[in-house]
Amino acid sequence: MLTYSFEGIKPEPLYLHLYKCIKNDILDGILTPGTRLPSKRSFAKNLCVSSITVENAYEQLKAEGYIYSVPKKGFYVTKILQSVHKTKDGQTEKIIKNHVSCSNADTGCCCDIDLVSNRIHPDNFPFSIWAKLMREVISEKSSALMEKPPCGGIMELRSAISAHLKQFRNMEAEPEQIITGAGTEYLYTLIIQLLGYDKVYAVEDPGYKKVAQIYRSNNVACEYIPVDNSGIIIEELEKHHADVAHISPSHHYPTGVVTPVSRRYEILGWASRKKGRYIIEDDYDSEFRLAGRPVPTLQSIDVMEHVIYINTFTKSLAPTIRISYMVLPKKLLERFYGKLSFYSCTVSNFEQYTLARFIKEGYFEKHINRMRNYYRNVRNKLMKEIKNSRLADISTISEESSGLHFLLKIQTELSDTEYIERCRKNKINVSCLSQYYNKDSGSTMDIQHTIIINYSGIKPEDAGRTAALLCSSLDSR
Amino acid sequence: MLTYSFEGIKPEPLYLHLYKCIKNDILDGILTPGTRLPSKRSFAKNLCVSSITVENAYEQLKAEGYIYSVPKKGFYVTKILQSVHKTKDGQTEKIIKNHVSCSNADTGCCCDIDLVSNRIHPDNFPFSIWAKLMREVISEKSSALMEKPPCGGIMELRSAISAHLKQFRNMEAEPEQIITGAGTEYLYTLIIQLLGYDKVYAVEDPGYKKVAQIYRSNNVACEYIPVDNSGIIIEELEKHHADVAHISPSHHYPTGVVTPVSRRYEILGWASRKKGRYIIEDDYDSEFRLAGRPVPTLQSIDVMEHVIYINTFTKSLAPTIRISYMVLPKKLLERFYGKLSFYSCTVSNFEQYTLARFIKEGYFEKHINRMRNYYRNVRNKLMKEIKNSRLADISTISEESSGLHFLLKIQTELSDTEYIERCRKNKINVSCLSQYYNKDSGSTMDIQHTIIINYSGIKPEDAGRTAALLCSSLDSR
Repeated sequence: MLTYSFEGIKPEPLYLHLYKCIKNDILDGILTPGTRLPSKRSFAKNLCVSSITVENAYEQLKAEGYIYSVPKKGFYVTKILQSVHKTKDGQTEKIIKNHVSCSNADTGCCCDIDLVSNRIHPDNFPFSIWAKLMREVISEKSSALMEKPPCGGIMELRSAISAHLKQFRNMEAEPEQIITGAGTEYLYTLIIQLLGYDKVYAVEDPGYKKVAQIYRSNNVACEYIPVDNSGIIIEELEKHHADVAHISPSHHYPTGVVTPVSRRYEILGWASRKKGRYIIEDDYDSEFRLAGRPVPTLQSIDVMEHVIYINTFTKSLAPTIRISYMVLPKKLLERFYGKLSFYSCTVSNFEQYTLARFIKEGYFEKHINRMRNYYRNVRNKLMKEIKNSRLADISTISEESSGLHFLLKIQTELSDTEYIERCRKNKINVSCLSQYYNKDSGSTMDIQHTIIINYSGIKPEDAGRTAALLCSSLDSR
Repeated sequence: MLTYSFEGIKPEPLYLHLYKCIKNDILDGILTPGTRLPSKRSFAKNLCVSSITVENAYEQLKAEGYIYSVPKKGFYVTKILQSVHKTKDGQTEKIIKNHVSCSNADTGCCCDIDLVSNRIHPDNFPFSIWAKLMREVISEKSSALMEKPPCGGIMELRSAISAHLKQFRNMEAEPEQIITGAGTEYLYTLIIQLLGYDKVYAVEDPGYKKVAQIYRSNNVACEYIPVDNSGIIIEELEKHHADVAHISPSHHYPTGVVTPVSRRYEILGWASRKKGRYIIEDDYDSEFRLAGRPVPTLQSIDVMEHVIYINTFTKSLAPTIRISYMVLPKKLLERFYGKLSFYSCTVSNFEQYTLARFIKEGYFEKHINRMRNYYRNVRNKLMKEIKNSRLADISTISEESSGLHFLLKIQTELSDTEYIERCRKNKINVSCLSQYYNKDSGSTMDIQHTIIINYSGIKPEDAGRTAALLCSSLDSR
């Protein structure tokens, strides 16, 4: 009869030890398929354990399929296809390592000054208010917190956003038109599922690389459309047979272009000329217009319901709280709820309720006002330092009135790649306008030597050092 | 702050335009009685008009009685009998209403007893520990909280999950192989982008409807593959030319089938027979096996790296905290990081750090143990009540040892639809096995009159009432 030792075993239940012993013998081929295992009673007697121990071990083996039982006969070893052993391979380790170092470079972790990433300095996040509201929500809303929210998010948050949009952007949006999600990137993929995989999606050139990457990764046709100094060019939209135009008329990234009302109506006109055309209005940093009058959103002047408005709390609150939202035109609601409401909302209830309070109780408005002053101060200091440096004579600044970046065009013999590389050596992370152009579009505009100064992550006291590093990176070492 | 646009306004004085904007908002009820209007100076600054413009507008409104002033405080909106009410258009209302009522039905909000949804009773969520850890994270980690996480999530959380998987599932998974996301639904869409839109995805029949819905909504081929009493049928996978098999071998929903080891090896064999085949192992409620030890995962016996393992904190913590994860085989890492690492992580840093602590400090293990006892108690009570009711003679219970549901086969003349409808009238929300079958697959098995008892959302004291309602719903009224 089978015999296993229970001497000096690990402090684990006996049945578990027995289970493992038998399992190993099956896997090692010592107990071959079809072998009948000893009866529980005799096996127990032989091993000097209780029948219960054997029974538990057998039940576990049976549950996992190593053995099977034949009524009134007993337990038999199952026939199992076996394969080779697990190995770690060195190559994979390398991939992981490579990736990890890349992702650090991307977020600029290794740099002192980061003029690329969208960051919020920890001093600027309202931690104590957020913690207070989160605490309130947890103590007052325990039941609601456990309730599955509608696919578009909890109504409190959507109502708060609706009121906010009315007040700040003069937009009419019923809470039901507002769909929240864990980041705009996620919302883009919902829009593709809503509008269709057969559509041609148009993105701005230059523009955020990520937008085109997402469309391509989601297997839909994506065309680059040139932008002039009023925004996206309508004729090019037509030429490329675009169905959906993904644009940021309030503040184009990275050129800073604000699309004037005349072009806005032209874009709406484009959308209404053919059935199935839509505009995705990406209003990512409209809260931080630092000068000039507010420009009405496309959504607010769109009477034909062709505009899907998208915004995020990435810039206005923090990029690491993943809450974004879109406003669907009413005529798309039936399609959205019919096709996509089976999806669960991707934002945690805890943060939805906290953010709803944050907005409703006026903290969001205060925060934005504070941040607007803060950023105005950073921008002014930075521009002053640049003007006081030797960059003054060899550079021009443009588009500084909206959003959280401006452009700095420098006279230099260095290529953009060389300049970026030198900056990196000086521990300052910068990007250039030319990097945001699609290589194939063959733009004839003079886009070289234009640095994008995204100052969302730097502090006023860093202004001097930033200007100095931008200067010294021009010199060879 | 209030914002109005001055773009493209009629040739009229600015103050008059502003006056009209505010008046309309008061009449429309957007500015409610008692609301304090912004101070003249800050309002003027925000709108980029002179203070005189705002002052003139306010004086006009005051003269007409729309607002009143309180010395040294400011201007407030008067209470006016409103005649003009904004009307939402009727059709949209209907769509929204329909949707809202559907979603209530889906989540069972209108029912007293819900045996369909995955819910966590608020009493069972560790609110005070969660709040404590969140507070700690906010006070200790402010800097890290504002730092953009890698696309797969913060390393602390991925390390904690890795250790958990080793300890509880005997799985080897480097933190870099673990990718977190806001729900498994989101992760499925990442997997499609990773493995390809040209692949045929196979789902279990019966099974969660949502899985197939997601594949179809993402525009990929999706085939229903029948399940027998050992799990998915290999020959059918071959017959349907499946490339990717999406299965839940640990505890199939809704049949409860646990795939034995022999079939597991056969599935792995299927995957290795042709290049590009993968298995998605959906291990959604493995933590709640109520008897015996957990069955080893496919991932842990997969030496050829064909398995993508997916799990979620939906059942083990709460469905309203949106954190799920997948474990990629090492050979897919290069492809994943190369193709998809541009995506931002969809889970908030705040909750990632909190969950990491929750796991690392042992709370998660305690919570699971507590919940396992709790659910065992609910299940036992419920089964006892059923056995003590008149259901005893006309029903059989099956597959009660794993996960948080069991099947109750009832002898009745009622169709499944009739029974569900009667239950609904009795305010008990149930679903039937037959609902989880794809209509086109033409299964010949006897699947009628089998109720799925998902007891994750009911309390022990509800057991008696639940059994009574299940009984009384059999009677006509």
